[in-house]
Amino acid sequence: MAAKKIRVHIENAHHKPELFRITQERWDAACARHRRLASRLNASIGWNGDILDDALKQAEIVIGVPARRERLTERAPRLKWLHATSAGVDSYLPLDWLPRRLAFTNNRGAHGVKAEQYLRMAFTLLHTRMPEIIANQRAHRWQELFSPSIAGKTALIIGLGDLGQGAARAARQLGLEVIGVSRSGKKVPHADEVHRITALDRLLPRADFVVMAVPLTPETRNLLDRARLDLMKPTAGVINIARAPVADYDALRDKLARGELAGAVLDVMDPEPLPPESPLWDTPNLVITPHISCDDGEHYIDITLDLWFENLARFLKGKPLRNRVDPRRGY
Amino acid sequence: MAAKKIRVHIENAHHKPELFRITQERWDAACARHRRLASRLNASIGWNGDILDDALKQAEIVIGVPARRERLTERAPRLKWLHATSAGVDSYLPLDWLPRRLAFTNNRGAHGVKAEQYLRMAFTLLHTRMPEIIANQRAHRWQELFSPSIAGKTALIIGLGDLGQGAARAARQLGLEVIGVSRSGKKVPHADEVHRITALDRLLPRADFVVMAVPLTPETRNLLDRARLDLMKPTAGVINIARAPVADYDALRDKLARGELAGAVLDVMDPEPLPPESPLWDTPNLVITPHISCDDGEHYIDITLDLWFENLARFLKGKPLRNRVDPRRGY
Repeated sequence: MAAKKIRVHIENAHHKPELFRITQERWDAACARHRRLASRLNASIGWNGDILDDALKQAEIVIGVPARRERLTERAPRLKWLHATSAGVDSYLPLDWLPRRLAFTNNRGAHGVKAEQYLRMAFTLLHTRMPEIIANQRAHRWQELFSPSIAGKTALIIGLGDLGQGAARAARQLGLEVIGVSRSGKKVPHADEVHRITALDRLLPRADFVVMAVPLTPETRNLLDRARLDLMKPTAGVINIARAPVADYDALRDKLARGELAGAVLDVMDPEPLPPESPLWDTPNLVITPHISCDDGEHYIDITLDLWFENLARFLKGKPLRNRVDPRRGY
Repeated sequence: MAAKKIRVHIENAHHKPELFRITQERWDAACARHRRLASRLNASIGWNGDILDDALKQAEIVIGVPARRERLTERAPRLKWLHATSAGVDSYLPLDWLPRRLAFTNNRGAHGVKAEQYLRMAFTLLHTRMPEIIANQRAHRWQELFSPSIAGKTALIIGLGDLGQGAARAARQLGLEVIGVSRSGKKVPHADEVHRITALDRLLPRADFVVMAVPLTPETRNLLDRARLDLMKPTAGVINIARAPVADYDALRDKLARGELAGAVLDVMDPEPLPPESPLWDTPNLVITPHISCDDGEHYIDITLDLWFENLARFLKGKPLRNRVDPRRGY
């Protein structure tokens, strides 16, 4: 007789965009790609908690963080592993609901390819003075705004996880000087220098582009504050693909309106959707994109499940899981 | 005694943007970079014909095509070489004013680096649905328009000179399949396939991006006409960094307005500056840039003169000049 199957529950939320949903079809396709591992699973798929409480009674693994997370120890007595289908887990902080015995993993690794492509666009968009050119088009104004080659400019990338390293690859390929900043200061590929976060204030004046790619935690909230924005060159630009609260958008708006920064490309807002009445929409030299920088619009779940199956192989062998969230750091 | 110096006249036009002017300072800097060659020259710099007729009496070389070009054989009896500081010479066609004995060269090679950078932006801008996102920002509308990875899409690059090969490098680096089209059909680096222009109609349906990078000649005028635009996929986009008349902009506007093409990025217009009343400004999913795609805003003349000095070395050794314009082809 076969070994007892492992119960996996997949929890979806209807309010999320379609590409983030683990449908039966996508799950079956992933199981077909990982046939041997998948044969050991017995999976259920739920939507907005419809079968959650029943499923939790048996589940050893849950994919997708449920909206109701209280008393997980009692409600999910066999649960060993909870996997978030996003890289950022800031919306689940603080992690006081997380039972100590439970491994909590995030979706790091699913975003780097798209982040790299978005950053190639964002760097060249700022460098080519597209924010002004877009405004000129709107005003039916032909104004020859030339720009030199981008090679040799300097990108300061704050946060060197999956997103930050994607940004570093994009910067390197454009011939930029790449300065990275991280908690550890450890070297990563494609960065010419890496510094600890404590060096930030003396690095900001060197940057032509500042890229925010940090997880949102109590430590990174308002990291790029008004005083730090004031350390940047007036010809420099800001790119945020992390979370909105890591930068002071009011200060950024003031500086853009006064021409004290050349431009900004912001993919993240607080709240999202950004309300129509927000003054950010019309801020000069600001390009707003609707949180689309790092998610593959066709294959997000395929990529996500492939990463999860790799981790499942470790789980089944009793090896430490990758991408475990450290409850103290919050990412 | 030193050999007799070669008389060079540099002809500038005040109406051109500053970056295209060969000022005394830029000329001196170039001479300092090419000291040995420069020591053999005796140069004059004129503006809008102010000293042209006197200078032509002695000049063996002229840099910059004069506005008045009639009777050059008589007016410039010693002239052997005329160099255009632009790559496109379409504004000087037909070349019936060009004395047969005169070598006429263009500025091919000065534009590839910027073209490559612009194309990286243009490809990702179209792929990331930025035309829609820009319109949404204007309307204060948050709409999550996701896109998959750009890798594996297909770029069809029409014209494989300096600009087209820059486009091919950009496309290759983004992981695109690169199809090139040229008069000769000869292989170039970074193109997966190269075809003769006669194959265009059967290539257009394969393209996700069509890049126009041909010189404007009687043969290329209206090359991307309404019938050819109709051969493109409705999800595809058009990029024009060549000259406006190589594509039918009325047809393009109709197709964009009806949603029969996904988007376009046009850097060239006819006339330039594009008049404020042009309907192109407000065409949906169209991004207009003001002829800035291929000219380095800081170093255009430095690059131009470095290329010219390389050619001067050939001239002095009696070798055939590079970048000679073929009067029959018109480029």
